[in-house]
Amino acid sequence: MLDDISTPGRLAEPDEGIGAEELGLAARNHGLPLEALRYDLTPPGLHYLLIHYDIPVLDPATWRLRVGGLVGTPVELDLAALQAMPARTVRVTLECAGNGRARLHPRPVSQPWLVEAIGTADWTGVPLRDVLAVAGVDPAAIEAVFTGADHGIERGVEQDYQRSLSVADALDPDTLLAYEMNGAPLPPQHGYPLRLVVPGWYGMAQVKWLTGIDLVAQPFTGFQQAVAYRLRQDPAEPGDPVDRIAPRALLVPPGFPDFMSRTRVVRPGPVPLMGRAWSGRSPVVRVDVSTDAGRTWVPAALEPEHGHRWAWRRFTHEWHATGGRHVLTARAVTADGGAQPVGQVWNRGGFANNATHDIPVVCVPDPAAG
Amino acid sequence: MLDDISTPGRLAEPDEGIGAEELGLAARNHGLPLEALRYDLTPPGLHYLLIHYDIPVLDPATWRLRVGGLVGTPVELDLAALQAMPARTVRVTLECAGNGRARLHPRPVSQPWLVEAIGTADWTGVPLRDVLAVAGVDPAAIEAVFTGADHGIERGVEQDYQRSLSVADALDPDTLLAYEMNGAPLPPQHGYPLRLVVPGWYGMAQVKWLTGIDLVAQPFTGFQQAVAYRLRQDPAEPGDPVDRIAPRALLVPPGFPDFMSRTRVVRPGPVPLMGRAWSGRSPVVRVDVSTDAGRTWVPAALEPEHGHRWAWRRFTHEWHATGGRHVLTARAVTADGGAQPVGQVWNRGGFANNATHDIPVVCVPDPAAG
Repeated sequence: MLDDISTPGRLAEPDEGIGAEELGLAARNHGLPLEALRYDLTPPGLHYLLIHYDIPVLDPATWRLRVGGLVGTPVELDLAALQAMPARTVRVTLECAGNGRARLHPRPVSQPWLVEAIGTADWTGVPLRDVLAVAGVDPAAIEAVFTGADHGIERGVEQDYQRSLSVADALDPDTLLAYEMNGAPLPPQHGYPLRLVVPGWYGMAQVKWLTGIDLVAQPFTGFQQAVAYRLRQDPAEPGDPVDRIAPRALLVPPGFPDFMSRTRVVRPGPVPLMGRAWSGRSPVVRVDVSTDAGRTWVPAALEPEHGHRWAWRRFTHEWHATGGRHVLTARAVTADGGAQPVGQVWNRGGFANNATHDIPVVCVPDPAAG
Repeated sequence: MLDDISTPGRLAEPDEGIGAEELGLAARNHGLPLEALRYDLTPPGLHYLLIHYDIPVLDPATWRLRVGGLVGTPVELDLAALQAMPARTVRVTLECAGNGRARLHPRPVSQPWLVEAIGTADWTGVPLRDVLAVAGVDPAAIEAVFTGADHGIERGVEQDYQRSLSVADALDPDTLLAYEMNGAPLPPQHGYPLRLVVPGWYGMAQVKWLTGIDLVAQPFTGFQQAVAYRLRQDPAEPGDPVDRIAPRALLVPPGFPDFMSRTRVVRPGPVPLMGRAWSGRSPVVRVDVSTDAGRTWVPAALEPEHGHRWAWRRFTHEWHATGGRHVLTARAVTADGGAQPVGQVWNRGGFANNATHDIPVVCVPDPAAG
């Protein structure tokens, strides 16, 4: 009976519109309205959210983090014990691995993100390595497996949400067990009372509602590691794992929109453009802006990191708009010489599609200006 | 040129999936994940959001509320002046007038809500009538027109978002000029620094980012009053205005979900059900629950209002689940004897469709229980 309600992944037919199940996911998961790119820190409630199953309700009075497996001493820690350890705050831009999926042809049928599955927050918590030091990692351990309380069924597999990291990634000083977002306790939907934050990685690594960490001697083969979140052209391939965030630049859409088409309207004359760029791989060193659909590019002014290696960076460009139609776009260029692709990065799961984003704009005089 | 980007409303073809423009709206506007019905007050970030154009950025240092038109003395008030007046807090369930639109056949093409465009908050502010008393309402005034800073174009009409209320509704002691949501300053996306809150009315009346109030002697005929938000069968009709929230009951989906289909899985045995019911019209006096797709109904236990006339009320029901497939649903019954319809309430704008919501459930034994 479960096979009927939990079916294999599939691709949409060439002319198939978004279906009822995709719409159901789009209605419950949240994207960032692109004008909110203007904020250095995403205001609470505008950060993207992707919840695989339901938001669990965990009672902080009885909740414990269990650390076990290949450790010297298995430990259980409550929230007060974690908060008593030295804290660290890291500003991190998070992005869903499926961001851009609904722009793919053919379209993998899943959460239909366009480009808005992003957000930036200050995450405060205990470095994971400090907690692992309390338990003592056995030299035979090669990975840490993280278990969240989010429970459901996916492609026929009933599961608590689980992901692993290599011991090396787990010991990175920026990898946090976070209990605060922007200086306040985690909201329920962001993992209260405790979540993993792995700066530079896509959202699937950022396990929310953490209940357990297990050190293991073999590569973890759970559903979210070995079945989902793999880059494949064909469903039979094992595929490569999805890991770090591909470079992306996005513009705040200028002017004002039409309600339904979201096409932008601007006035002739100077139009200040701004946006954000980020990468979990090679760092962004330049952002180019195009106002002619990518035929020509101009470097934007890119703000420094301000000490926040894992957060988006602001860029600005002054555009002189003239009457008519235009297509604005931006691309991030990284230290290793890579640039965002103009064409799609297609794979069967619809992951890491960082193709540039086009913003159609119409420039007309202000009718009220006479 | 604007006619090309801002087109008339239309209905989807019988087999037309959700299109790119509808998906764009679904990706930026937020619904409440239904499991969040468990909270009396919706946690920040899970309340529904429908923003016609962009979230405006208003500087509280220079922002003023202007009250003019048919008043004794036009006034301008800053935030400190409003906060110095006696404050009132009202708990209000808000719902988008378009909630349920995407469940209609044929489907009006606009923001494609299913059932999740809801949320409940404590709103704190100044009763509007106290501010109107400062200016003095001219006896010739019949309506107050509210202007928000949200600017865009819709069906070819460039506009600041504007709506009106009758003077009688404006003078209702529960009608607020709100500057706090759940005890904190309004988030940008909920109308910072000031918004209108009209308890019992659909969201289109709750003008955000308020900049002006004008008392007028004639019925307001602006776009959002006379063109949009009308109940029509045919586009040529003037239509009836959308106003108060139709009764609705929604269940927290029990058990756990499949990721893609969101179908619920429960175990045989007792399954506690809970949900929320509300109405901006005749008050809810009973909620019925059905576990057989509406063939039979059982009254649920309905909590009292607890002094919150305009907030949703909690209901509970203990279901004894047996193996197999079930369809759960609930309906609100009001003091005037009305009940939620099982069939759709169709109109061309897709407003106020309060048809009951079906939740498919599969009941199977726990494979781990042996």
